[in-house]
Amino acid sequence: MKNQTYRMSMLYDFYGELLTPRQKEFFDLYYNEDLSLAEIAENNGITRQGVRDVIVRAENAMQEVEDKTGIVKRFQSQRPALDEILSASAKIKEINALHYFDPQIGELADRIADAVGALKE
Amino acid sequence: MKNQTYRMSMLYDFYGELLTPRQKEFFDLYYNEDLSLAEIAENNGITRQGVRDVIVRAENAMQEVEDKTGIVKRFQSQRPALDEILSASAKIKEINALHYFDPQIGELADRIADAVGALKE
Repeated sequence: MKNQTYRMSMLYDFYGELLTPRQKEFFDLYYNEDLSLAEIAENNGITRQGVRDVIVRAENAMQEVEDKTGIVKRFQSQRPALDEILSASAKIKEINALHYFDPQIGELADRIADAVGALKE
Repeated sequence: MKNQTYRMSMLYDFYGELLTPRQKEFFDLYYNEDLSLAEIAENNGITRQGVRDVIVRAENAMQEVEDKTGIVKRFQSQRPALDEILSASAKIKEINALHYFDPQIGELADRIADAVGALKE
């Protein structure tokens, strides 16, 4: 399961609140706190397989919502456009700094970069 | 119900695929095709109240997912940053057109505006 940590983090970021409290707890301990299945099992007085079942069910529940809605994919597909904006604003800043020294253009380019930064958070 | 058409369209855009086929069908006829409850009822051989129940259940199901995840809100909160980017790029274009006539800056500002347009779709 752990080879999918990035994908699981994205799913959890969007859909984590749709899980049951127990699914959330085990998912979080396993993926975010990096505890092993055996450690979670011992701390909760259940079997390793029992922990695994809860986490797999959580993964499947979130993946099912994503397969239907495509929301995470939709967010991720914004990335190239944001990178394009960022690189264009950096280029404007560079041209301005080389040739025109216009403080307003420099400031506007910074404002664009800041707004992209906020969108990427 | 119809006074909430915009909000319902947003919910449907994100979460419509989580509904049952019947919920989707009635929701779509009512909100997107603008049929009345009575018309949908007649076409489907059920009561007006029956149609209403299906649609209300669809609305509640989607609202519940949104209350938990806040995904629609998260998308909508991007709007101000995108507007900020757009207005800054327009201003850069304007300053350039007035003072510097640099074709590269004009083209970069256009590229930024196009990328924002793609993100707003």
